[in-house]
Amino acid sequence: MKAAVFVKPGQIVLDEKPVPEVGPGQALVKITTTTICGTDVHILKGEYPVKPGLTIGHEPVGVIAELGVGVTGYQLGQRVIVGAITPCGQCYACLDNHSSQCGGHGTGGWKAIGGWKFGNTIDGTQAEYVLVPDAVANLEPIPDDLTDEQVLMCPDIMSTGFSGAENGKVKIGDTVVIFAQGPIGLCATAGAKLRGATRIIAVDGINERLAISRRMGADVTINFREKDPIEEIMKITDGKGVDVAIEALGTQQTFESCLRVLKPGGVLSSLGVYSGKLTLPADTIAAGLADQTIITTLCPGGKERMRRLLNVVASGRVDLKPLVTHRFKLDDIEAAYDLFANQRDGVLKIAITP
Amino acid sequence: MKAAVFVKPGQIVLDEKPVPEVGPGQALVKITTTTICGTDVHILKGEYPVKPGLTIGHEPVGVIAELGVGVTGYQLGQRVIVGAITPCGQCYACLDNHSSQCGGHGTGGWKAIGGWKFGNTIDGTQAEYVLVPDAVANLEPIPDDLTDEQVLMCPDIMSTGFSGAENGKVKIGDTVVIFAQGPIGLCATAGAKLRGATRIIAVDGINERLAISRRMGADVTINFREKDPIEEIMKITDGKGVDVAIEALGTQQTFESCLRVLKPGGVLSSLGVYSGKLTLPADTIAAGLADQTIITTLCPGGKERMRRLLNVVASGRVDLKPLVTHRFKLDDIEAAYDLFANQRDGVLKIAITP
Amino acid sequence: MKAAVFVKPGQIVLDEKPVPEVGPGQALVKITTTTICGTDVHILKGEYPVKPGLTIGHEPVGVIAELGVGVTGYQLGQRVIVGAITPCGQCYACLDNHSSQCGGHGTGGWKAIGGWKFGNTIDGTQAEYVLVPDAVANLEPIPDDLTDEQVLMCPDIMSTGFSGAENGKVKIGDTVVIFAQGPIGLCATAGAKLRGATRIIAVDGINERLAISRRMGADVTINFREKDPIEEIMKITDGKGVDVAIEALGTQQTFESCLRVLKPGGVLSSLGVYSGKLTLPADTIAAGLADQTIITTLCPGGKERMRRLLNVVASGRVDLKPLVTHRFKLDDIEAAYDLFANQRDGVLKIAITP
Amino acid sequence: MKAAVFVKPGQIVLDEKPVPEVGPGQALVKITTTTICGTDVHILKGEYPVKPGLTIGHEPVGVIAELGVGVTGYQLGQRVIVGAITPCGQCYACLDNHSSQCGGHGTGGWKAIGGWKFGNTIDGTQAEYVLVPDAVANLEPIPDDLTDEQVLMCPDIMSTGFSGAENGKVKIGDTVVIFAQGPIGLCATAGAKLRGATRIIAVDGINERLAISRRMGADVTINFREKDPIEEIMKITDGKGVDVAIEALGTQQTFESCLRVLKPGGVLSSLGVYSGKLTLPADTIAAGLADQTIITTLCPGGKERMRRLLNVVASGRVDLKPLVTHRFKLDDIEAAYDLFANQRDGVLKIAITP
Repeated sequence: MKAAVFVKPGQIVLDEKPVPEVGPGQALVKITTTTICGTDVHILKGEYPVKPGLTIGHEPVGVIAELGVGVTGYQLGQRVIVGAITPCGQCYACLDNHSSQCGGHGTGGWKAIGGWKFGNTIDGTQAEYVLVPDAVANLEPIPDDLTDEQVLMCPDIMSTGFSGAENGKVKIGDTVVIFAQGPIGLCATAGAKLRGATRIIAVDGINERLAISRRMGADVTINFREKDPIEEIMKITDGKGVDVAIEALGTQQTFESCLRVLKPGGVLSSLGVYSGKLTLPADTIAAGLADQTIITTLCPGGKERMRRLLNVVASGRVDLKPLVTHRFKLDDIEAAYDLFANQRDGVLKIAITP
Repeated sequence: MKAAVFVKPGQIVLDEKPVPEVGPGQALVKITTTTICGTDVHILKGEYPVKPGLTIGHEPVGVIAELGVGVTGYQLGQRVIVGAITPCGQCYACLDNHSSQCGGHGTGGWKAIGGWKFGNTIDGTQAEYVLVPDAVANLEPIPDDLTDEQVLMCPDIMSTGFSGAENGKVKIGDTVVIFAQGPIGLCATAGAKLRGATRIIAVDGINERLAISRRMGADVTINFREKDPIEEIMKITDGKGVDVAIEALGTQQTFESCLRVLKPGGVLSSLGVYSGKLTLPADTIAAGLADQTIITTLCPGGKERMRRLLNVVASGRVDLKPLVTHRFKLDDIEAAYDLFANQRDGVLKIAITP
Repeated sequence: MKAAVFVKPGQIVLDEKPVPEVGPGQALVKITTTTICGTDVHILKGEYPVKPGLTIGHEPVGVIAELGVGVTGYQLGQRVIVGAITPCGQCYACLDNHSSQCGGHGTGGWKAIGGWKFGNTIDGTQAEYVLVPDAVANLEPIPDDLTDEQVLMCPDIMSTGFSGAENGKVKIGDTVVIFAQGPIGLCATAGAKLRGATRIIAVDGINERLAISRRMGADVTINFREKDPIEEIMKITDGKGVDVAIEALGTQQTFESCLRVLKPGGVLSSLGVYSGKLTLPADTIAAGLADQTIITTLCPGGKERMRRLLNVVASGRVDLKPLVTHRFKLDDIEAAYDLFANQRDGVLKIAITP
Repeated sequence: MKAAVFVKPGQIVLDEKPVPEVGPGQALVKITTTTICGTDVHILKGEYPVKPGLTIGHEPVGVIAELGVGVTGYQLGQRVIVGAITPCGQCYACLDNHSSQCGGHGTGGWKAIGGWKFGNTIDGTQAEYVLVPDAVANLEPIPDDLTDEQVLMCPDIMSTGFSGAENGKVKIGDTVVIFAQGPIGLCATAGAKLRGATRIIAVDGINERLAISRRMGADVTINFREKDPIEEIMKITDGKGVDVAIEALGTQQTFESCLRVLKPGGVLSSLGVYSGKLTLPADTIAAGLADQTIITTLCPGGKERMRRLLNVVASGRVDLKPLVTHRFKLDDIEAAYDLFANQRDGVLKIAITP
């Protein structure tokens, strides 16, 4: 089968690999649609290290091709979706309700980011087939009336973005700011609206993205190239600051900006992937006395999470199709990476079909 | 092997059965100590229906005798404990953090009381061997320096009793009442202390039990045969009522008494097993306007829960050995049932050893 | 001034009273719009006892006419709204985050339903003027661009209905049923949507109300005169039941129906006012072993709550104007009571203007 | 009256001031015992700026000398305690359950650290009398059988320390580390035990303090001058890390150490007062993907909090008398500051009596 394989920093190529063999508790899924994530670009650039030879990608929509021993309740040919995070459900972390930090089978317990396996520690989804571990915990059937593209954001972007609002504990009547309106930030905007925020402020530097922010639920948009977002937000909130600030990029500037507009007692919900050293100026947190919370979240996975997100799509509450701006065949995935890594042509997300 | 088998209402007998065969994901445990639970007596009396021929019991301490395919990270001969509730970890209920309502393998979702399998829907632990389903999620190694009897309460009584305090959301400085001081109520008393309640009121009709209540952390004990507990509690609390009331018996009288002493805004944490119809007089809940919560809980299980409870035992924070009042061989289990069902001789819990 | 006064069961009349004098910490508000609540009808019928001579009503929109000593930060003539519940903010219950059970000034602590003062323990709002206790905690300025009728539901109906979804802990992707679609049930429907429920089922016996339910966010409506709601809901949910059931009427039938469609692990969020004895059949709660929660809620009040609800109105997220079906002058309030108590002419809520 | 007054950085002197006049809603308390806090030393050193002429101190035990208009339910001569934080109960922050960020009377809303008034924005407690604002929300009667010294830690140290464990969401069976065992860290240790932690690790550099740690509930103590605490803790926890890490000092080193031993999914509960810039190395938080929470807390106040802490003392669950190592007359407070600021003679807390 064909698969997009990491060779070395700077090089992901389409290669041939054998179709994987299915072990107990696993399932083989024939990919019908997948996509490229910002994390994949970090891998491409060598900023996030993975083993050479690994198939990349973690956002699968497909059809069940084979079921391992012990995987009951599913049929061959069934359309399914699987989260980017594939918890085992049976380790200490999973049983303690932290399944994104899944420690895997056996008595092993907790492993940071351990729930992220596809395209990280096992072969991923930018291929014709993918092997799903702990299939009972992870295969979620897709309703017939939803297209692949309608649900393509569920495995990662939508789950991550929504969790920004959920873990930020957004309440009815809250003012929420989301810094950065890439795909995850846009989903965080949609998530804040779904949780009842009534003033949603979206910040980005690209007006085309801010236009989509408004479609996702933003009441106010700020282009940081035109106005200072901190001044603007403090003015809008009469000097109080926001109830919840969502960081959706992973830089010092966005992280610190969140702190600078956060009310005493507020929550900074962080979705970004950071490198180096974050700095937390004491004055932004009132010397540690402002009763504030900083919470970091890795994309929630597992079939129950996918079921809920499919419900959101099916209900029409949120429509994420505008995020799919480009389409490529798997055969052309190297070109897709080139477009996406360089953020050309207003790209948000690319649908890849084998 | 020998096993205590339900024959028909009124009859549980010691019988011969083949040692079970081990399937994928399962483990065979050789029982070293088990016990009889109040629920088993309900089964004996025909008040809780199970299939004739079923082995009874759900509180296992033992040694791993065989491991099924896919169960890695354990060794043969390892001492383990398993909760009364054995979640699969992979169904919708388990993945939604309600593993006691486990829907089992496959796409099946939620099943009321579905997590309770031993001695309910599959063969139980009052036998020489027991087959543990979803072994990776359920086998917890026992530290060498803890005896079987020290940990024998973990699978059910301790997990259930503590959850009464945990789900009642006991806070530091709370006043908590526990109605009934059988084994579960005594553990709820210990749990309330562990969560920081500073005035714990234990109610029962047997002074010997109330003496143990005080060892478990009760600050005040009330023998309801000597004083009206409602009057007494309202006097103690200056008419305010308690912050949390824990029901640990399963009768109209204890349930209603909880409501009658519960402050506005308080929590009734219910552990009892009810039959027939509970009545909720409108005046006890201020017509539904008192911001009160009633929460029912089934014993939490899984190996992470067991790990935490073993920690409690190992730390010496709570010593539940006083609850083991009698010891019987498995060969004499019919006599043990007779003693326990008739609550003779001050029995609290009986250690059964094959 | 004119005031609607309770005389005896069956009789509320428009009477003359002196304009109240303003004490320390209080404010006098000139009513511009108020309304009649279902609770007022209970008072009229003598089902909820209040002192003869009391002015009825608890939903005020008005203008500040006078400020007592210590009430700073407000101006005479300012348009304000006040919740139906007026917490003091300083008693034990208020400081413990249960301000609807406010115990009032002094060392007194908790009082069931104590936060409900207007038209219950002190003179209410169906009058030309109302005296607001603990004014600093309760006066909330109304933005200029919102009309009285737009915000008229905030003090009670909207606050109560939304709290049904909030305390039911509705999550993104939940299925929620609301039994009864009177004004409170309709607001609970809107609240469930605001919290991210993706399948909202509204049950009532009047098709005109169910039409409004759909405008408020219901995805499915069931007229219980045409179909059995329990059967229908269990079919829709494939036998699983709903995640959250909201009771918005206060009868045995709706309460029990909630339990009959509630999934294991689900939450029954109760808003109704009950009388007599509620019955809780053991089979509806799996004998107390289904990990379910029943939570009762009295309307949340205080100016922070009002601020949030005004935000909801101002953002356009929810439009409750369709609930105001009739308008009367205060002079004609007796006729308004007659219409409302008899539920004639499709009445939902009546705007009363002095 | 005599009062310890801040003159300029480096100088706090005992001075004469008039006894304050009592306004509406206020109370005058005659101090019987107070103490010096680490924050007072920051003020003395000019590290935390206050207005010259301000009376310092925020930990009052005393007797009611006068009650302002509207303060009912108390008697002259009554022994009372008041928290270091004195919320108004009526502003937006207080009504939103963040009373330590109290915005004060009027429509003003939120103010960072606004709840801390004594010895910060109004005259404090190191004097013969102190004026208590919003007295109804803040005066808590002391049971007769408790001495001043028994309750002297309640206003600040105990409330702060316990909140470290409470906001860290310590659960039964948790492993908790507390970095630094000054008075606040010692109270955090006691609080972790009260919430059910079963392995409590206390870290400090002074063995005398670690001896008290063990009395407060520590199971393991680490002198960082003798062993590397990070290595040691990772070894003790088999490489998993701790469930909750409590920072009780306010330095980069202790903050970063908390992160380095925190398990994925864990909580860093921060009590320290920081200056300059905190650094958060990305590798300590798995690049922001470890589902961790950092929560900062300012001492909770108000009479309900004091009531709960008095309950803890009265119940004997925690005995903080060992923390009072020295006693001085108010007349000698300058000497007391000298001893305390230089941490001579094993000082933990000093009781000051006028």
